[in-house]
Amino acid sequence: MSDNKNDFVKEITNIEDDFAQWYTDIVRKAELADYTPVKGFIAIRPYGFAIWENIQKYADEKFKEHGVENLSMPLLIPESLLNKEKDHVEGFAPEVAWVTIGGGNKLEEKLCIRPTSETIFDTMYSKWLSSWRDLPYKYNQWCSVVRWEKETRPFLRSREFLWQEGHTIHETAEEAKNFTQEMLNVYQDIFENLLAIPALKGQKTETEKFAGAEATYTVEALMLDGRALQGGTSHYFGQNFTKPFDVKFQNREGKQEYAYQTSWGISTRMIGAVIMVHGDNRGLKLPPKVAPIQVAIVPVAANKPGVIEKATQIYEDLNKKFRVKLDTREQYTPGFKFNYWEMKGVPVRLEIGPRDIENGQCVLVRRDTLEKITVKLDNLEEEIQSLLEKIQNNMFKMAEELRNRKTSVALNMDEFIEKINSNQGYIKTMWCGDPECEEKIHELTGAKSRCIPFEQEKISDTCVCCGKKADKMVVWGRQY
Amino acid sequence: MSDNKNDFVKEITNIEDDFAQWYTDIVRKAELADYTPVKGFIAIRPYGFAIWENIQKYADEKFKEHGVENLSMPLLIPESLLNKEKDHVEGFAPEVAWVTIGGGNKLEEKLCIRPTSETIFDTMYSKWLSSWRDLPYKYNQWCSVVRWEKETRPFLRSREFLWQEGHTIHETAEEAKNFTQEMLNVYQDIFENLLAIPALKGQKTETEKFAGAEATYTVEALMLDGRALQGGTSHYFGQNFTKPFDVKFQNREGKQEYAYQTSWGISTRMIGAVIMVHGDNRGLKLPPKVAPIQVAIVPVAANKPGVIEKATQIYEDLNKKFRVKLDTREQYTPGFKFNYWEMKGVPVRLEIGPRDIENGQCVLVRRDTLEKITVKLDNLEEEIQSLLEKIQNNMFKMAEELRNRKTSVALNMDEFIEKINSNQGYIKTMWCGDPECEEKIHELTGAKSRCIPFEQEKISDTCVCCGKKADKMVVWGRQY
Repeated sequence: MSDNKNDFVKEITNIEDDFAQWYTDIVRKAELADYTPVKGFIAIRPYGFAIWENIQKYADEKFKEHGVENLSMPLLIPESLLNKEKDHVEGFAPEVAWVTIGGGNKLEEKLCIRPTSETIFDTMYSKWLSSWRDLPYKYNQWCSVVRWEKETRPFLRSREFLWQEGHTIHETAEEAKNFTQEMLNVYQDIFENLLAIPALKGQKTETEKFAGAEATYTVEALMLDGRALQGGTSHYFGQNFTKPFDVKFQNREGKQEYAYQTSWGISTRMIGAVIMVHGDNRGLKLPPKVAPIQVAIVPVAANKPGVIEKATQIYEDLNKKFRVKLDTREQYTPGFKFNYWEMKGVPVRLEIGPRDIENGQCVLVRRDTLEKITVKLDNLEEEIQSLLEKIQNNMFKMAEELRNRKTSVALNMDEFIEKINSNQGYIKTMWCGDPECEEKIHELTGAKSRCIPFEQEKISDTCVCCGKKADKMVVWGRQY
Repeated sequence: MSDNKNDFVKEITNIEDDFAQWYTDIVRKAELADYTPVKGFIAIRPYGFAIWENIQKYADEKFKEHGVENLSMPLLIPESLLNKEKDHVEGFAPEVAWVTIGGGNKLEEKLCIRPTSETIFDTMYSKWLSSWRDLPYKYNQWCSVVRWEKETRPFLRSREFLWQEGHTIHETAEEAKNFTQEMLNVYQDIFENLLAIPALKGQKTETEKFAGAEATYTVEALMLDGRALQGGTSHYFGQNFTKPFDVKFQNREGKQEYAYQTSWGISTRMIGAVIMVHGDNRGLKLPPKVAPIQVAIVPVAANKPGVIEKATQIYEDLNKKFRVKLDTREQYTPGFKFNYWEMKGVPVRLEIGPRDIENGQCVLVRRDTLEKITVKLDNLEEEIQSLLEKIQNNMFKMAEELRNRKTSVALNMDEFIEKINSNQGYIKTMWCGDPECEEKIHELTGAKSRCIPFEQEKISDTCVCCGKKADKMVVWGRQY
């Protein structure tokens, strides 16, 4: 293991000096994404996109286990449809992109690029639905959406982002509500088991809920710098959309009834979370399950007879079971390659040179702890399998420790301010439920409510802000 | 097997009466797609989208075997970028959709929704490329594009369509040219082995090639009504884009050189081809390899004891290996369900009733031949496996016979006109290479050149149109 970072890796800003610049450096140096000529629109490069493909594959299988089917709805939505649900249009109209010219002609009605697709799903659902026997519809699409954000950062907040949007309708309110929880649990599963990030599950406050929803549920994650990130949301709409869009069915009693609706989404912002939860001064650090490359093989003294041959043989064996890269680039030294693959966040580096070959062994280096392990080539596959599992578990544990270290309790506003300024992170408090207190807390601390966690604790009897009686525990944090 | 079509299936127009209406009926009745409030934009419903997912999976694996990596480029392209390559902008500018307002403000420069992404790929390639060691870039994206077509038809020609667009750059012209052929061969593989449609491979004429390309290669397919469909294209650009976009690298001699480029795409129009090559008056007919449901199980006398249980057990056994649907809907008769699954194009229907159970057997009905086969439950899995293979092969054979039956040779224009009017289909002729003859043939017959096939035959020495010396054989056809 080299302790000197070479020039290549030096180009990454120290995490302690400037977190935002460190983040941007990783995005660009690890070739995850790049800026394009259109402000706020990024190009996701193959290495970043392969992370997204792994997330998609995992999530899509889970969705399908819950009976979800994929489809494709149109990219463009007429203004009149967007306007049908009052809260929704107020929430989204200010940040949409409008198509006004098509095929050389000014359009009679302008069309927005979907910022989200409730309005178009409900339009089609109203055409398709007739009986309770047709229900539920559990449909999803993987696509991109456009929201004209003012401030943008790659993956975290961009004017176009890739996501999945699931839209379901159900026969009863209860079934729909249950489904929002099922999907929220899938999101928690993705965060914890795939991305090795602890997820805080709860309900959004009225102020923070989705425009047009009855209730919004969320999984929240905490970044290395103590800022929070909304990771995925699942909304219950009741009949808020199905009424204006006339999505109704003949129920079991033979009467017309409006369907009960949900929607739920996760996006490429998850890639931002992976960077900001696990990364360090050497660069990216990827959990094995989501890493596009799980093992990078670096031959040492590659010009010596037999080294490349042996490395190639190992590559071919391992590649049947893992995602493996063999780095035979002649223009770089092994030391450069060690740093390079660390920077790219590959969980395990495999070094093999002439002496290793003589001894029937190789060296494995863990990206999470930088520990070096010499292993026999005989049972290499088992060693790597077990090491990848260890790394996955250890990365979750480290992220959990970070989250715990950066979670504070506050009984009053002085404590709140002191703790968020000294320790950033999550602040747990009691809250009376008044949006005015929420607003005041935001003004005083810059923190917003993350959620009302499902797992409640009784911290005190009084609101952290106004001191009145309070029975809800809320977690707050400054956010991305 | 029921010979009477019930009301449900009667809603499909007879293929002989009105081919276009038959097509639209299938698209809608089989729930493949539906119209939306935005003209020319369709919603692809889950059953149609599942066909696309099967195509995607097959194609994506093949691409990756050829070293292709996926990424994501922005949806919007600034006008100035689109304008950089002269032929390209002339080809595409008239049919794009323009975004002129974003976030409530008029944009300084209008942005088009990508009609294709050569211009944005080249912009990014020029940022990323520096040395011959970086090459090749073999990148692809699965996305949707928008082209403001005047006449639209679901899957065949819509203002938005889903596709993949691969864009590669190479160190040498030869390598790039070879890669266009590799991808064309993948397309042929998809058409023939997945979709059971014979593909005609060849080069487009100058008139028909892609705007901005040096050469366009194509796979063409012939529909039931004798019209041709361009199935997939692969373009060689030379340095046509890399020069204006400054995509250059230091070559092995240390000099700056512009890269050599390709692009290649297939789209959801393939679903249209599957409908129009294989369908019949009963509805859709899907090749087993691409069918979302390969076996539909219909219990007969489902109210008799043990029938549902046995059907469920068969479902669970088969579902491990095949894509299976068990139809337990109580509101429909078995007869209705037989027609329903025929209409949906499911390759094999499995009927099981009390007497079958007594005899340890069930009935399999082939969608391609409507043949009924009684088989023992003991080796059901093997029977179905072999039957699905037989159906796949037979459907290809039937499509090949159609193609052969509808291919004619013409030595002069009288023959050409007579044959295309009587038999529609492909017309093989010699052609002198003059675009004026091509134009005249189009005027006289409505047929366009499909391609100059790679497999040439010497039909005569003279051009079918002008009678001058000709050494190219061209296949012509009226097109979708």
